[in-house]
Amino acid sequence: MTFEPSKLAMVPFVSVENMLKLVHHIGIENVLCDLAQAIEEDFKRWELFDKTPRVGSHSNVGVMELMPTSDGKLYGFKYVNGHPKNAKEGLQTVTAFGLLAEVYSGYPVMLSEMTVLTALRTAAMSAVATKALAPKGAKTMAMIGNGAQSEFQCVAMKAYCGIETVRLYDIDSAATVKCAGNLARTGLRIETCSSIEDVVEGAQIITTATADKDKQQILTDNHFGTGVHINAIGGDCPGKTELHRDIVSRSTVFVEYLPQTRIEGEIQQMAEDHPVTELWEVLAGKTEGRTSLNEVTLFDGVGFAIEDFSALRYVHAKIKGTPFFDDLDMIADPDDPRDLFGMLQRAR
Amino acid sequence: MTFEPSKLAMVPFVSVENMLKLVHHIGIENVLCDLAQAIEEDFKRWELFDKTPRVGSHSNVGVMELMPTSDGKLYGFKYVNGHPKNAKEGLQTVTAFGLLAEVYSGYPVMLSEMTVLTALRTAAMSAVATKALAPKGAKTMAMIGNGAQSEFQCVAMKAYCGIETVRLYDIDSAATVKCAGNLARTGLRIETCSSIEDVVEGAQIITTATADKDKQQILTDNHFGTGVHINAIGGDCPGKTELHRDIVSRSTVFVEYLPQTRIEGEIQQMAEDHPVTELWEVLAGKTEGRTSLNEVTLFDGVGFAIEDFSALRYVHAKIKGTPFFDDLDMIADPDDPRDLFGMLQRAR
Repeated sequence: MTFEPSKLAMVPFVSVENMLKLVHHIGIENVLCDLAQAIEEDFKRWELFDKTPRVGSHSNVGVMELMPTSDGKLYGFKYVNGHPKNAKEGLQTVTAFGLLAEVYSGYPVMLSEMTVLTALRTAAMSAVATKALAPKGAKTMAMIGNGAQSEFQCVAMKAYCGIETVRLYDIDSAATVKCAGNLARTGLRIETCSSIEDVVEGAQIITTATADKDKQQILTDNHFGTGVHINAIGGDCPGKTELHRDIVSRSTVFVEYLPQTRIEGEIQQMAEDHPVTELWEVLAGKTEGRTSLNEVTLFDGVGFAIEDFSALRYVHAKIKGTPFFDDLDMIADPDDPRDLFGMLQRAR
Repeated sequence: MTFEPSKLAMVPFVSVENMLKLVHHIGIENVLCDLAQAIEEDFKRWELFDKTPRVGSHSNVGVMELMPTSDGKLYGFKYVNGHPKNAKEGLQTVTAFGLLAEVYSGYPVMLSEMTVLTALRTAAMSAVATKALAPKGAKTMAMIGNGAQSEFQCVAMKAYCGIETVRLYDIDSAATVKCAGNLARTGLRIETCSSIEDVVEGAQIITTATADKDKQQILTDNHFGTGVHINAIGGDCPGKTELHRDIVSRSTVFVEYLPQTRIEGEIQQMAEDHPVTELWEVLAGKTEGRTSLNEVTLFDGVGFAIEDFSALRYVHAKIKGTPFFDDLDMIADPDDPRDLFGMLQRAR
């Protein structure tokens, strides 16, 4: 066997181990800010992108999804699963990986783990929405749901939005203890709370990241007053919501990509024509975000393919010249492209 | 840095090199027959599958596609590009890779190259259609288009359908020379031809595998008589066809998955309600295939996700206990699944 993969056949692969190394090499807060900036850049050129709602395969225990998009030069997609029952079995609720390919040739240019990267970009996305919509000078966030995503949200809010205090609450107090422990040396002031009523007190920003698949009303309308910004990021598939509809009713609602959010977001609960604004329009200066101090703004986040694209192109740029990737023999590359069979024969 | 990927985080990866080794380990003809059988098995349980037309991202030079499906226990998808102009630039027209995941957990169970595997399964698919539809006792096939797919088609027809003679034609005679050379030691009788009129002479089976994106009429209605079976497998995206519509008109047309073939296959040229039969119905005994010796049967093949699923589950079964895969650190696997951030911190 003398077959030796050629250079063309090689695709850079970022393993979980290398992603962790890359993040520490750059610094977690720097990565979160860089990702928020990459997302803002791509949202500002939103109209360039080839957009489609994600393609899901649903079972009674979870969902597996493909999220593709392209800006005309690069094409990216993510495979991601969502299985809330996994945690009880010692597995991740969400695992993911993604691909970046060149539109001109269709050849992959990078394969990457995206379990860690999705956690980072989801937090960066909330930070982008919060910076655009929250009341000016907000310093305190309530974090409801203290699972795998919670610390990323808190650190992104500190790094990108200047949040100084996070108030934590989870129906499982062990999750709150874990979250508080992980945040101990981040420079954030941590306040652990024992109820929804408690956690929202004094918070100008409320972020919900809970993972159950049923329709929930984790937050109801009598829990808080006016002048807050809410990030509802846990409701992200059909039948899964976190907020009482009265909250949605009195909020100004911002979404990523309306055709997807209609079937996956909090606005599932509302009429088809319930007014919402796509966030990119605010970032691109096409429309206003928050218009008064007393307004309740709601970012109904479900996660959209362009955010993964932003994250993949960022990682692709950052691994150049580093040792944080391996070369994967993923593409057959015969000397004569029409001679795939000859390549197979010669490999004997 | 003491981070060590756990077993759970590891996904078996079949590189191009390992795929070539696996194919030779089993034998090319055996692999083609096994794949044809795997496809037949899955087509017979067609109704179990979660089916959707592939999700394409089109540019002016090619297409990038995602092809997902699931049988309720396993989920598979393929990434594949189609760039006819690539060959002139020394690149493959089609490259591909695929994933198999467990529906219950959403965790990937295998990542595999699929450039070589797609070439094999495409040939196996034609063999399945040909065995079901061609006149009994057919021994001669005309192979029109002698590019990367042609030898695979010829060998599959020999192994699975008992074809003894292949007649080769390509507008580029160098392709025919390459194809004939590669088939020299396969046991097939090879006849090279210099025109369409020539190549179809005496053939009971006509297979077209040409790759241009425009509407073509490689084969027109006066080229052949009755009692033949045609596999038209090169027309596989919107705007790309190979046959004159008069041929489609007088043929009994069989397709893989109608919602996809309507927009990608030869039947693009026909009225929306042009009668066609899904091939699985023939294989499952729900309807007849060929009903007379004089009939012209046409397999309007575009390639469907279930065929890739069949190929992936076959490879997944075959690599067990072999050295023909590597373990890829693709899934983050913290000790506590809710503690992804802690895993990131501890990796410092």
